[in-house]
Amino acid sequence: MNGLHIIADLYNLPENRLLISAKALAKRCVLACEAAELTVLGEHFYQFAGIDALQVGGATGAVVLAESHLAIHTWPERGEATLDIYVCNVTADNTRKAERLYAELLAALKPGDVMMQRVLRGNALPLAAAL
Amino acid sequence: MNGLHIIADLYNLPENRLLISAKALAKRCVLACEAAELTVLGEHFYQFAGIDALQVGGATGAVVLAESHLAIHTWPERGEATLDIYVCNVTADNTRKAERLYAELLAALKPGDVMMQRVLRGNALPLAAAL
Repeated sequence: MNGLHIIADLYNLPENRLLISAKALAKRCVLACEAAELTVLGEHFYQFAGIDALQVGGATGAVVLAESHLAIHTWPERGEATLDIYVCNVTADNTRKAERLYAELLAALKPGDVMMQRVLRGNALPLAAAL
Repeated sequence: MNGLHIIADLYNLPENRLLISAKALAKRCVLACEAAELTVLGEHFYQFAGIDALQVGGATGAVVLAESHLAIHTWPERGEATLDIYVCNVTADNTRKAERLYAELLAALKPGDVMMQRVLRGNALPLAAAL
């Protein structure tokens, strides 16, 4: 299961329907996966209600990929979101596809600031025993 | 979106129905989330076919939580799986729930070896501009 996991926390997001509509976010995520030539197996997204009448609710969900997954959670009231893209390389090197998906979603969401790290998963040698 | 993300790569897994049945894996994951007092909003799991008649297919999926997500992918032919548990702390400190979910799933899967890291997400200060 060697692969690239992109972990991104997005800040200072401008207002965007994707942050407040689970339906719109799901559609955009699936399209971005397809644009990156990843294989979408299915998805589940959920629309949060706002805490009160003055606050809009966020959207949250995951896309299950043949190559692993995309997960995204939004906090429109804070202008923030988290994004996870994990793409394994069991049958091919999918690193470029993961990077393309990341670029697609940044372009769609336009965060002012990002904290991002690339975690390379699945080294050949396990380092620690379980528990 | 401060929170704990547990990233685990599981090796040397013994034979287990959870590795080869998306239905059984989904059910076990949802029960483990509930046992950890996390709020399940929905899930999507997918059953892979094996490459040929001699190989069983793996299972893959994600559980969408009010507190963020669980994602799991199995490779029964290699005795391996990856596990992601991300639990945000926006309204409460859910760290113990994440650790309990992790312990539940390790107990269910019994990996011989684990490579695991805890990523603390969502520091207050963004460090890098986007793109």
